[in-house]
Amino acid sequence: MQEFEKLPGIGPRSAERLAFHILKSDKDTAMALAGAIREVKENVRHCRTCYNLTESDPCPICADPKRDATTIFVVEQPNDVVLLEATGLVRGVYHVLLGHIAPLDGVEPGDLTIEALVARVKKGDIREVVLATNPTMEGEGTALHIKSVLAGMPVNVTRLARGLPSGSQIEYATRAVLQDAIEGRKSF
Amino acid sequence: MQEFEKLPGIGPRSAERLAFHILKSDKDTAMALAGAIREVKENVRHCRTCYNLTESDPCPICADPKRDATTIFVVEQPNDVVLLEATGLVRGVYHVLLGHIAPLDGVEPGDLTIEALVARVKKGDIREVVLATNPTMEGEGTALHIKSVLAGMPVNVTRLARGLPSGSQIEYATRAVLQDAIEGRKSF
Repeated sequence: MQEFEKLPGIGPRSAERLAFHILKSDKDTAMALAGAIREVKENVRHCRTCYNLTESDPCPICADPKRDATTIFVVEQPNDVVLLEATGLVRGVYHVLLGHIAPLDGVEPGDLTIEALVARVKKGDIREVVLATNPTMEGEGTALHIKSVLAGMPVNVTRLARGLPSGSQIEYATRAVLQDAIEGRKSF
Repeated sequence: MQEFEKLPGIGPRSAERLAFHILKSDKDTAMALAGAIREVKENVRHCRTCYNLTESDPCPICADPKRDATTIFVVEQPNDVVLLEATGLVRGVYHVLLGHIAPLDGVEPGDLTIEALVARVKKGDIREVVLATNPTMEGEGTALHIKSVLAGMPVNVTRLARGLPSGSQIEYATRAVLQDAIEGRKSF
């Protein structure tokens, strides 16, 4: 119960429920969970190219010759790679920053994988860096920092489009969303 | 209670509560509500230029010489005008469609104010028509219809930007939102 309670979103009641579930379940099920946890910690590491979580290095995306290695999608977290991959719309590769700049939380640019990104661009053959950080204050600040770090290098720096979320109604849009939508309007 | 119950979102219990509130409140308060309802039905009509709700015709926005009358923001409902005006970012004028095309609900293009919009464009001096319909299936269909109706006329047809809503996280974006964000990405 004590160990379960250390997990995020699991309070004393859930921890108790989980612990009793383990006690009641057969040995194989319990050992499979224990084994999966151990295996993940032993085998999963960061890809040395893109810093995504992977069991092989380079990761399957970086190693895939069918991917467009000239376009790098820069994201904050490994989770964002999963989401963008699920769309099936990204032909390029990734670079995982492992966070965003947040001086108040003590996260400086040097704590992220920005240097490694710059090294990838400097090595050449990169045509486009797509800043796919979150459209939040921290994500935006991180994108601006990377933009300034890459300034002058022979690479197109782009950003994911911002505006009205598809499927929503103008009625529920915030001022910031409407501002992006109005200022970013384009030929149709 | 019967009359209150006819209003949207007001069930029998709320209707009862409202009716008793009226009974308990002083006569001036009750008469002010009755008067406001009567006044609205007697004095509020549609602007003959933009079809927004107004007490004067033309409406204050159409009549304002400081507005950029060469740019028309096309919206579905009067409510959308209120929202866009609240941003303070629209220098142009509006055209209220009074709905969206929805064949299954029996709403055909002829039921909207599209002909009046075309007449405004034909009259000349319009440089840009910004389609600011909702980014929903119906809003999108309506925008496409208007685009085809305006095809060939000397006017720029644009659309509000679509993409990640400012302040959100990629983690919570739908596939459609990510598609808009990826395909609409631009130089940063």
